[in-house]
Amino acid sequence: MSNKAISYAGPGKVEVVDTEYPEFVLKDGPGVNPANVGRKVDHGVILKTVATNICGSDQHMVRGRTTAPEGLVLGHEITGEVVEVGRDVEFTKVGDLVSVPFNISCGRCRNCKEGKTGICLNVNPDRPGSAYGYVDMGGWVGGQAEYVLVPYADWNVLKFPDKDQAMEKILDLTMLSDIFPTGFHGAVSAGVGVGSTVYVAGAGPVGIAAATSAHLLGAACVIVGDLNEDRLAQARGFGCETVDVSKGDPKDQIAQILGEPEVDCGIDAVGFEARGHGKDSSHEAPATVLNSLMDITRAGGSLGIPGLYVTGDPGAPDEAAKEGSLSMRFGLGFAKSHVFVTGQCPVMKYNRGLMQAILHDKVSIAKNVNATPIRLEDAPQGYADFDSGVAKKFVLDPHGLITA
Amino acid sequence: MSNKAISYAGPGKVEVVDTEYPEFVLKDGPGVNPANVGRKVDHGVILKTVATNICGSDQHMVRGRTTAPEGLVLGHEITGEVVEVGRDVEFTKVGDLVSVPFNISCGRCRNCKEGKTGICLNVNPDRPGSAYGYVDMGGWVGGQAEYVLVPYADWNVLKFPDKDQAMEKILDLTMLSDIFPTGFHGAVSAGVGVGSTVYVAGAGPVGIAAATSAHLLGAACVIVGDLNEDRLAQARGFGCETVDVSKGDPKDQIAQILGEPEVDCGIDAVGFEARGHGKDSSHEAPATVLNSLMDITRAGGSLGIPGLYVTGDPGAPDEAAKEGSLSMRFGLGFAKSHVFVTGQCPVMKYNRGLMQAILHDKVSIAKNVNATPIRLEDAPQGYADFDSGVAKKFVLDPHGLITA
Amino acid sequence: MSNKAISYAGPGKVEVVDTEYPEFVLKDGPGVNPANVGRKVDHGVILKTVATNICGSDQHMVRGRTTAPEGLVLGHEITGEVVEVGRDVEFTKVGDLVSVPFNISCGRCRNCKEGKTGICLNVNPDRPGSAYGYVDMGGWVGGQAEYVLVPYADWNVLKFPDKDQAMEKILDLTMLSDIFPTGFHGAVSAGVGVGSTVYVAGAGPVGIAAATSAHLLGAACVIVGDLNEDRLAQARGFGCETVDVSKGDPKDQIAQILGEPEVDCGIDAVGFEARGHGKDSSHEAPATVLNSLMDITRAGGSLGIPGLYVTGDPGAPDEAAKEGSLSMRFGLGFAKSHVFVTGQCPVMKYNRGLMQAILHDKVSIAKNVNATPIRLEDAPQGYADFDSGVAKKFVLDPHGLITA
Amino acid sequence: MSNKAISYAGPGKVEVVDTEYPEFVLKDGPGVNPANVGRKVDHGVILKTVATNICGSDQHMVRGRTTAPEGLVLGHEITGEVVEVGRDVEFTKVGDLVSVPFNISCGRCRNCKEGKTGICLNVNPDRPGSAYGYVDMGGWVGGQAEYVLVPYADWNVLKFPDKDQAMEKILDLTMLSDIFPTGFHGAVSAGVGVGSTVYVAGAGPVGIAAATSAHLLGAACVIVGDLNEDRLAQARGFGCETVDVSKGDPKDQIAQILGEPEVDCGIDAVGFEARGHGKDSSHEAPATVLNSLMDITRAGGSLGIPGLYVTGDPGAPDEAAKEGSLSMRFGLGFAKSHVFVTGQCPVMKYNRGLMQAILHDKVSIAKNVNATPIRLEDAPQGYADFDSGVAKKFVLDPHGLITA
Repeated sequence: MSNKAISYAGPGKVEVVDTEYPEFVLKDGPGVNPANVGRKVDHGVILKTVATNICGSDQHMVRGRTTAPEGLVLGHEITGEVVEVGRDVEFTKVGDLVSVPFNISCGRCRNCKEGKTGICLNVNPDRPGSAYGYVDMGGWVGGQAEYVLVPYADWNVLKFPDKDQAMEKILDLTMLSDIFPTGFHGAVSAGVGVGSTVYVAGAGPVGIAAATSAHLLGAACVIVGDLNEDRLAQARGFGCETVDVSKGDPKDQIAQILGEPEVDCGIDAVGFEARGHGKDSSHEAPATVLNSLMDITRAGGSLGIPGLYVTGDPGAPDEAAKEGSLSMRFGLGFAKSHVFVTGQCPVMKYNRGLMQAILHDKVSIAKNVNATPIRLEDAPQGYADFDSGVAKKFVLDPHGLITA
Repeated sequence: MSNKAISYAGPGKVEVVDTEYPEFVLKDGPGVNPANVGRKVDHGVILKTVATNICGSDQHMVRGRTTAPEGLVLGHEITGEVVEVGRDVEFTKVGDLVSVPFNISCGRCRNCKEGKTGICLNVNPDRPGSAYGYVDMGGWVGGQAEYVLVPYADWNVLKFPDKDQAMEKILDLTMLSDIFPTGFHGAVSAGVGVGSTVYVAGAGPVGIAAATSAHLLGAACVIVGDLNEDRLAQARGFGCETVDVSKGDPKDQIAQILGEPEVDCGIDAVGFEARGHGKDSSHEAPATVLNSLMDITRAGGSLGIPGLYVTGDPGAPDEAAKEGSLSMRFGLGFAKSHVFVTGQCPVMKYNRGLMQAILHDKVSIAKNVNATPIRLEDAPQGYADFDSGVAKKFVLDPHGLITA
Repeated sequence: MSNKAISYAGPGKVEVVDTEYPEFVLKDGPGVNPANVGRKVDHGVILKTVATNICGSDQHMVRGRTTAPEGLVLGHEITGEVVEVGRDVEFTKVGDLVSVPFNISCGRCRNCKEGKTGICLNVNPDRPGSAYGYVDMGGWVGGQAEYVLVPYADWNVLKFPDKDQAMEKILDLTMLSDIFPTGFHGAVSAGVGVGSTVYVAGAGPVGIAAATSAHLLGAACVIVGDLNEDRLAQARGFGCETVDVSKGDPKDQIAQILGEPEVDCGIDAVGFEARGHGKDSSHEAPATVLNSLMDITRAGGSLGIPGLYVTGDPGAPDEAAKEGSLSMRFGLGFAKSHVFVTGQCPVMKYNRGLMQAILHDKVSIAKNVNATPIRLEDAPQGYADFDSGVAKKFVLDPHGLITA
Repeated sequence: MSNKAISYAGPGKVEVVDTEYPEFVLKDGPGVNPANVGRKVDHGVILKTVATNICGSDQHMVRGRTTAPEGLVLGHEITGEVVEVGRDVEFTKVGDLVSVPFNISCGRCRNCKEGKTGICLNVNPDRPGSAYGYVDMGGWVGGQAEYVLVPYADWNVLKFPDKDQAMEKILDLTMLSDIFPTGFHGAVSAGVGVGSTVYVAGAGPVGIAAATSAHLLGAACVIVGDLNEDRLAQARGFGCETVDVSKGDPKDQIAQILGEPEVDCGIDAVGFEARGHGKDSSHEAPATVLNSLMDITRAGGSLGIPGLYVTGDPGAPDEAAKEGSLSMRFGLGFAKSHVFVTGQCPVMKYNRGLMQAILHDKVSIAKNVNATPIRLEDAPQGYADFDSGVAKKFVLDPHGLITA
């Protein structure tokens, strides 16, 4: 049985390839950790992929900013229908329509028991934490494909209660696999609550998801900053204030909006490929966002940091950044008693509640991120468009179930 | 200087009386604890009352269900303009427009330092916790009056940042003194979060405020139960589902709405004057709501209990209830690992955030509770109407600043 | 292969019986829920029982206070060595020495994902929550036996890092299956922290475990109340103050100890078979402890309630109590803003940390509860002695591994 | 009336000077912010200083690493007897023996109401947060003096319940003003709980207090690292394991102690004057401790950072550090989902509980830090000795009440 998929084909390139249909075992292949080769996955299910999105973190690989090997099948944002279940699967059934958290976790280790599924100890031989189709994450095959294997399925998948209802909202529900919980985690980590003022650095899909989440959590005022006017317009479309950081330090623009140059909560939805502000916005300056957030966030506030920072960045502008070191104004943060919350979002902590919010029409995440379904074959164009900064979140539709 | 006020005049009666203009001392009078007589209040401010609401808990007194003495000046929901400041007041200024938490607190005791302002140790010689114009609460004079003394003002008052803006939203902001935070506390205590399903017992103003709060906190579905069809209609008006408990056990109606007979979170906005359900709804059955919530709330859920339960209820239907004892199905609660959160809302924990939500147009509490301004002189009629169950929240307007 | 076990043989009686050696399936038998009969347990392991304790909650059944059927194999406090693993077990190995939480949980449902393993949704067809060898808990066979089946083993078991070290501390480690976490949960739920004053109602093993936990959490003063002088002496043995409730209301004795009649934190380690205080101590009065704790616990405090309250008690002294209804002074609790935390302890939340505390010599739970190993054959005598109120915690030693 | 005090006299020098006896006003003087000059302090009390300690953070000033002006009266660790009360003081009485949190706070602002007393908005015109006798902290006169003014006394002071008992434990209780809560905050922020493994970087008084706190919180194993063998010996004296960082990376030594190279919780009790590890330990390397903690602390762990980081450090080894910028391996922290908790300890959150622990003999902080009382006149020698790295915490005794 064929299984078309999207794979990394060297810096700047992705391509549609034919891959093997999954079995209940993790086979060798590009990026698979040797210690994981041959691992039995009788606890897994095979999904027919209904929706699988292109993510900003995929772009780090595609831009050649990582050590991802060519041939790596991409994709960690997966929603699909169960077509086969492993012999050890008890509660997940063929026919279930499910969302899959991008972070693979075992549901048996100390961290999983504590709800820290972003740093599961048992799925990635290299380090705590894993994901589908990602460099250095253990080698689990990506989901930008017609079919994909999901391990520890009873633990990992979130079943939608009603399939028909779910298909009507599939462009919203597909955001549950990563960006909606990731943005929500950023907002929660930043301490957003009813009445908060919030600044979100970055108006890409995660930033938009964080802003959407801040509204959902009752924030009084949500301000989004970016260099990209199209993306800022999108943020304004659902009630955010915006700041164009190419025009200077966000502090002054915040003061104009709020009457004071500070917010209660700061969210970094940019990460390590940050650019400078104002006249420095044309080149990378990896600590810009973090330092800016310390400046902007009130004393006693928290910084939620869903934006990705890496341990190694071969393409970084300086030696320190190549090792993931940043020049942070930590003394300023200390003086303001800031708390910094980092790391992969533990999706499972949030996806059920966010699903409920979607199903009961409390939130329109698809509209806010401008979810745009395209065919699997059009993924290369989608990657290129996304990289150009269009204000869209591309949703691959391998079986034509959405676009139909 | 005259100071018209509303006082309790025996079971079923309130009247407009002339009282003394406040000074920076707590003088003797109806209901004033002897140990509080003569207490110096140089830390206080005198407010010109802009808005002061009739509360359901006032009705317990007016119905004669308490030991409140005749002549007690009523009113603990106070918003006003500072017209005089005591010599020890440093940060509150003449002209400030402020909201006053109904629970008086000192800002110096162990409980206040822990944020538990509903059980301040220094303001009521009888027990922890106090309020304006309320029986057994220390004797602080009520605020349903033209002018009122607010002690420990720098600690207690919440200043609105812009007076003109505030006057435009005064019917919303006046709810910050009690029912909005009280309902919000009920929702928070019940564990309401993004995606929760919620049942609120009681569609009076506190129940409506709890339902409003649940929406603001991101609840997926909010169900309100009551016997009073007008109040249920009000709840439906802002997106709640409703249950008419006169038609039987709420469990079945909840199952029809949600597809399962349970909610994530239960809120008791009724308290000790509860009536039975279904055919028992014509008489009081004080544990009805609590027992029903244990039945309805899922295992692992919490019960937020803003509804008032008292230590003595002379008018109770049975001897046990007269002492505040209820026959609770505690074994059921235990089997479901329920958590019960009781007590006065510590208003100060929430009022600033809720003010921000109001000022940034995130919530319409006045509309939801049907805030209805009336003249101070019309308070007796307002009490009577409220007692009859009209779906209105009466806002007294002693100086004609609202109705004008 | 034979498998000697302890079974319930009617009110007041337990006996040693021969049972079947476990297989990876839940077979029919006394107390097994029909819906669970035949359930496959390939995710399970079979343990050779090293230590299995008699619990106060077993006594409710043995006293005939429940609907437990004769022939029910008892025992939910289980520590053992893995001798067989089901085909789907991945991380637990033959030879591992493990502690088993008394509450069986699946590690796949919503509640397990939230850490609420005491109310797992998938293991007991009757209601959320389950346990080994207990009435109405699904029918999982008890562990007071030579061998026992543990389902969902990779999720449920806690492996001791070093077997030899563990065998040296086995009388401490055996308390991890129930009473130590249960007492600890009571202390945590009551808000015990560094510097707290604490009252523990009940000096049975759970009460002693709660007092031990309070000390471990840094409590300044821990007061234990009971009617049984031997048990009080035991509490004094590790630094607790004590109160003899047969001599009157604990309030006065607390005032003598602390200089004030209140504590910060109240723990109910008695449950539904409570007796009165003072002259009322000769007969049951099921709400005594709860009402007393409301009186004794300071305003703003929490009540941790590990003591068991049931939904049905055929042997209760009055009709209300037979349905698990208690006459609670809830008005008093409300006036003091008390929080009531009920339910089975989610053992998995605490057992790892408590194990570490034992292995690093931070706590002596075995000594504090007077752990007393006896042979499996002597279990009937152990039950009788425990029921008589001896200050001992009996540890059954089916294979002579401890007593040797 | 004379008032001998200790003042900064230029890099490396402190001296005993005669100063004015305090009045209920903040007068002009070295380091007093102009906006604070003349501020009325009728809410204050005057203390006769019973004990006032030399702090490591005083040394930053004395070493000339700050912009502190000459003549600044030092001292923010203050315990004393109330000898005069301002006219607005209501609950604090002449004769009370009290501990004073080093962070001055108003008890009226938003941050104080939230318990964030380390960043009070009303006491320091420069920025949130203040302290006695410290550069850029508003100019409140230091307490290394015979008498000292304490503003907002009803809010700030912690009264000891029994004076005689307190004087017996005065060397313990004097640690409540700063280092014990500061170390405790570090431990709490790092997530220390029952059973945790903990690494504390730095064995100075704050490090020792953090280690003491970790034990009090139930940690299973507490490891302390430093370059100073005397201080490490002190840590071993109360049950800590130790690591000599001059011998290399702490990671390897931790692995030897625990069998794994990671701890659950990391505490930075060093701050910005950190030195390197191993062969780099002879020179400053300000990010060493933070980067090391990211390496050592397990994924999902928190870093409690009571060690001081500053916004400006004129004596720093490089330009970035002069502005408080550090080269942090933030990518590593992100990969491990670390949380970083910074800032001044909000003393008021902890001092009452820690006082109770001291008074009930649960902890021996004085012995652990080697509290050493000396006369006020000997302060210059005390500063010099402390700077040389002796394993002592010097307690100034201005009135001979301790050493007598």
